[in-house]
Amino acid sequence: MAEPKTNELMEKIASLCKRRGFIFQSSEIYGGINGFWDYGPLGAELKRNVKELWWRSMTQERGDVVGLEATIIMHPKIWEASGHTSTFSDPMVDCLLTKKRFRALVKQGRADELDFDSLEMHVVGKIDSARKVLEPFAVLLQPGKPPESARRTATQFYHQRGLAGVQLLGERSDKVENSRRYNPENGAQLTEPRQFNLMFKTYVGPVESEENVAYLRPETAQAIFAQFKNVLETSRQKVPFGICQIGKAFRNEINPRNFTFRSREFEQMELEFFIRPDEAVEAICGKVASAAEVSNIEHRTSDAQPSTINHQPQPDWGWEAWHKYWVEERIRWYESIGLPRSTLVEYWQKPEELAHYARATVDILFKFPFSKRDDQGELTGEELEGIAARSDFDLSQHQRFSGKAMGVFDEELKVAWAKLDEATKKVLGQRYQEARFKYLTKSGVAAEQAAQDAKADADGLAKGQYIPHVIEPSAGVDRLILALICHAYSEDQAPDEKGKLETRVVMRFHPRVAPIKVAIFPLLKNRPELVRKAGEVRELLRPHMTVFYDEVGAIGRRYRRQDEAGTPFGVTIDFDTLGEKGPELKDTVTLRDRDSMKQERVRIGDLLPLLLEKVR
Amino acid sequence: MAEPKTNELMEKIASLCKRRGFIFQSSEIYGGINGFWDYGPLGAELKRNVKELWWRSMTQERGDVVGLEATIIMHPKIWEASGHTSTFSDPMVDCLLTKKRFRALVKQGRADELDFDSLEMHVVGKIDSARKVLEPFAVLLQPGKPPESARRTATQFYHQRGLAGVQLLGERSDKVENSRRYNPENGAQLTEPRQFNLMFKTYVGPVESEENVAYLRPETAQAIFAQFKNVLETSRQKVPFGICQIGKAFRNEINPRNFTFRSREFEQMELEFFIRPDEAVEAICGKVASAAEVSNIEHRTSDAQPSTINHQPQPDWGWEAWHKYWVEERIRWYESIGLPRSTLVEYWQKPEELAHYARATVDILFKFPFSKRDDQGELTGEELEGIAARSDFDLSQHQRFSGKAMGVFDEELKVAWAKLDEATKKVLGQRYQEARFKYLTKSGVAAEQAAQDAKADADGLAKGQYIPHVIEPSAGVDRLILALICHAYSEDQAPDEKGKLETRVVMRFHPRVAPIKVAIFPLLKNRPELVRKAGEVRELLRPHMTVFYDEVGAIGRRYRRQDEAGTPFGVTIDFDTLGEKGPELKDTVTLRDRDSMKQERVRIGDLLPLLLEKVR
Repeated sequence: MAEPKTNELMEKIASLCKRRGFIFQSSEIYGGINGFWDYGPLGAELKRNVKELWWRSMTQERGDVVGLEATIIMHPKIWEASGHTSTFSDPMVDCLLTKKRFRALVKQGRADELDFDSLEMHVVGKIDSARKVLEPFAVLLQPGKPPESARRTATQFYHQRGLAGVQLLGERSDKVENSRRYNPENGAQLTEPRQFNLMFKTYVGPVESEENVAYLRPETAQAIFAQFKNVLETSRQKVPFGICQIGKAFRNEINPRNFTFRSREFEQMELEFFIRPDEAVEAICGKVASAAEVSNIEHRTSDAQPSTINHQPQPDWGWEAWHKYWVEERIRWYESIGLPRSTLVEYWQKPEELAHYARATVDILFKFPFSKRDDQGELTGEELEGIAARSDFDLSQHQRFSGKAMGVFDEELKVAWAKLDEATKKVLGQRYQEARFKYLTKSGVAAEQAAQDAKADADGLAKGQYIPHVIEPSAGVDRLILALICHAYSEDQAPDEKGKLETRVVMRFHPRVAPIKVAIFPLLKNRPELVRKAGEVRELLRPHMTVFYDEVGAIGRRYRRQDEAGTPFGVTIDFDTLGEKGPELKDTVTLRDRDSMKQERVRIGDLLPLLLEKVR
Repeated sequence: MAEPKTNELMEKIASLCKRRGFIFQSSEIYGGINGFWDYGPLGAELKRNVKELWWRSMTQERGDVVGLEATIIMHPKIWEASGHTSTFSDPMVDCLLTKKRFRALVKQGRADELDFDSLEMHVVGKIDSARKVLEPFAVLLQPGKPPESARRTATQFYHQRGLAGVQLLGERSDKVENSRRYNPENGAQLTEPRQFNLMFKTYVGPVESEENVAYLRPETAQAIFAQFKNVLETSRQKVPFGICQIGKAFRNEINPRNFTFRSREFEQMELEFFIRPDEAVEAICGKVASAAEVSNIEHRTSDAQPSTINHQPQPDWGWEAWHKYWVEERIRWYESIGLPRSTLVEYWQKPEELAHYARATVDILFKFPFSKRDDQGELTGEELEGIAARSDFDLSQHQRFSGKAMGVFDEELKVAWAKLDEATKKVLGQRYQEARFKYLTKSGVAAEQAAQDAKADADGLAKGQYIPHVIEPSAGVDRLILALICHAYSEDQAPDEKGKLETRVVMRFHPRVAPIKVAIFPLLKNRPELVRKAGEVRELLRPHMTVFYDEVGAIGRRYRRQDEAGTPFGVTIDFDTLGEKGPELKDTVTLRDRDSMKQERVRIGDLLPLLLEKVR
């Protein structure tokens, strides 16, 4: 069940991931299970660090986002409201001979197994045997094969249907190009495309009946919407504010591929940031900030140094400003964990690509080694995160499907509205009413009812009530881990034990995300004073960061192993540390930098603050 | 779908959990889903803290355990090897009338729906209608009801089977006691018990065929065994060492109950600590430490102060010493997060309770408010964690089912073995061989083959090869969270705004696990100097801990809200802080202790180190 390797670099990276314990195939001793990957000791730490940094940046470091941890299995009605039950599906075709299933359509820019053309087609005509007339069955003749091979395939097909010993009654041939009606493996005809839902299904409770069907969540976002009112009522937050969640999600992908990039089980980090509708912002502030007015948040800094410019949210921000703000926030965060802007692509979806309820969506892409190249030979990138302005679609859907009010009361809006002149009230009310009418009719509510409901919603707005709009930055953890690993992987030249240059593999992780922060080496393991001192240094650092202690083998080899693990710092305890070369070097150690391989002499007493500053 | 409340205290606790955002019912707006619970903002932080402390205590703070993060869906063969496919099941019965399913057996000490007795039984005899003779159908007559009601139930039963308008051909009555053959809801007869597997089933890949069946893991442990060799080969660890994992697990419980205690989706923290078989220890060290020799690790300390006694593992520890060590380690850890020993019970399973491969198992119980009381009126407790000495069963099973060698090579053993005298070699070899033979025959290997394999295993031991034994401390996160919440919940008397005593609800979480570490209050929100200063204090503390800023309402009410959230410290910025009562109090704040409600004056400059010391 090995992945097809897209290129040599990805092969090297996957090999290092296995060799160093970053990523293993799930259930490897049983031959693996396609689309599932485990994180080994280093991978698990890397992933924990990334998730912790995301969570802290969302919650602890700001006052307007709180966390949630919801279950993977939820009430199935949630997926009706979100649309996943009806539309989260891929069109699939089955081979009429082997029953093997394939994805039917090839989206542009996405490889697929069913992409072949210009082969000769051989049609076997109607069959009449044992008084049964069967439909024609078509076979695609493989290039260079005789027509008899297609006839054999057709005979096999009829035999399977209980028509042993039948004669083929007729046949005809045609040329086809770019057809996707045939199984590329045996040329047999495929069924018409049918929708196949990508949610994993199970049953909750002892009986496997329709009423007990439940799904593994295909995204973490919906739980946030479903619990919106509970969180609002218990967290002392007011719109604008956000709810974030990290957790597993599952999609029964037909073609898992590109190592861990497209997996069937994966983890998401999602934020739903709830904002006022623009009409409420305008009623309160008299205007809505234009994108140009918030252009200061676009300030770009060098890759190495995340921007520290203050770009505090303002009360007059509507969805456009908030959307832009979150795009910028998220890119800065990627920079802060070691993915420079130059490795990312900020892709604004075109109007025709947007979901009907979305106002705008930006995809943040990372240039993976397996990404396609554009006409200029540049890597185009694959999606790490999507940041969508989703209007009030999600909460509105849950309100309709649950029958529970999902709106908020906004005292500020009520007060401000009362002071508006009549003309402004009318303009804002009408604009809000039109937007609600559009949502309702698009969601299948009959026009008359929709008009009535939209009017009621507009009346509500005038009293300070509305359903919040939402900006959704939604990131895939496993994709990000793979991006960090791909970006970190590098080879350079370093001298071996005998001073001869050899290729060094080094994982240049940002110290913040590196699985191990510092490795501690006594120069020789058979010198108790060195070992004891190294143990002391370990105990000094261990409460504050992950340390790795290694006393086995030549020091150069120990450095190389930590280079491959991505450990940014190495501390060596040698005879100088013991004061054997004089008191001035006593209680100093060698601090080695992974990237530059430079070594400096540092006092043990200075080690902790020095390292803490670099790894935080 | 509300839980039946076992007592008033649990009702109060569940109500607080909802009110303050610790725990919500999953999918509440859709009526909930039985056995699934979400963690709100405070609950999510509490849970994160607990998991982080466990992970750090296992990995970062010691050198001999590494982490793993495996998938929830794994190859189904894993569950054959572990025995879950064949034996992880409950006997179930169906109502012949309504098809409703019940758990059939009542384990001692465990309530069940099917527990009733001493009712009169009414049997309706054989039926002959439309030339069909049906088996007799029995009905339990409800006390006080006329026999006609049982006849109606029986008629209904036959009607469902297409026998409309039939006459009951015979009947007979009997007395029954303690019977579990009848549906307590309608008296109808139940089917014979059938095994119902508790694993959630799904299909991976597009076709719902037998070969695509997969399960949601019912425990995290098996992934550790399946990846044992990969981790061993990449982590530079040697036996004894451990692999730990935190993650979701799923069990399709028939009767989820006691709030979050028995849920269908839950999280586990599991360690598999791999050790040498006793025969290898004896070969290397000349002896195996007896339980008495390691009694120093039993040293008990006061509840408040976790022991700091050094009890370093020794090379001569066999499974008994390691098991005892881990029991003690785990209890100390519970103490360190605020569960005193007095709230826990260390329950040693009796020989007849042990699984056949287990040498010993200790359950750590917590005395929940819903726990049963013993004869002395003491709460008996419910399991938080099980610490099992599982011999070499698990790795042996995976070796047999995968055909992949799961053993290790131990250089030290090989060297030591060569130096043993022949008599010792023989004794140790035979003992090992017998243990292996016992495992193999118990696992269904034919005696002749088992004898041959056990001999080969003993030959391997002499060359330094063996399958490691394992000690497994396995804890439930959600149960622990519930224990922490139950233990933290308390009520006392405190003066309200007007000095009148009122009941105060306070969550006395240990500062290490408290969701919010410190709340920051400007005395008045309409004084910009106070608000600005409070903002500065917030920025000072925020990078280092979770803070909550609150400027709304009377200060006493703000304190009360944080008491309910379990926030251990409150910092108030008042006019003294601004220096209005003289320069000596300038830049000092009030630090309020949640538990004692005592307030002290602290310099802002001293705040961070003072708080850090208490919350770490």
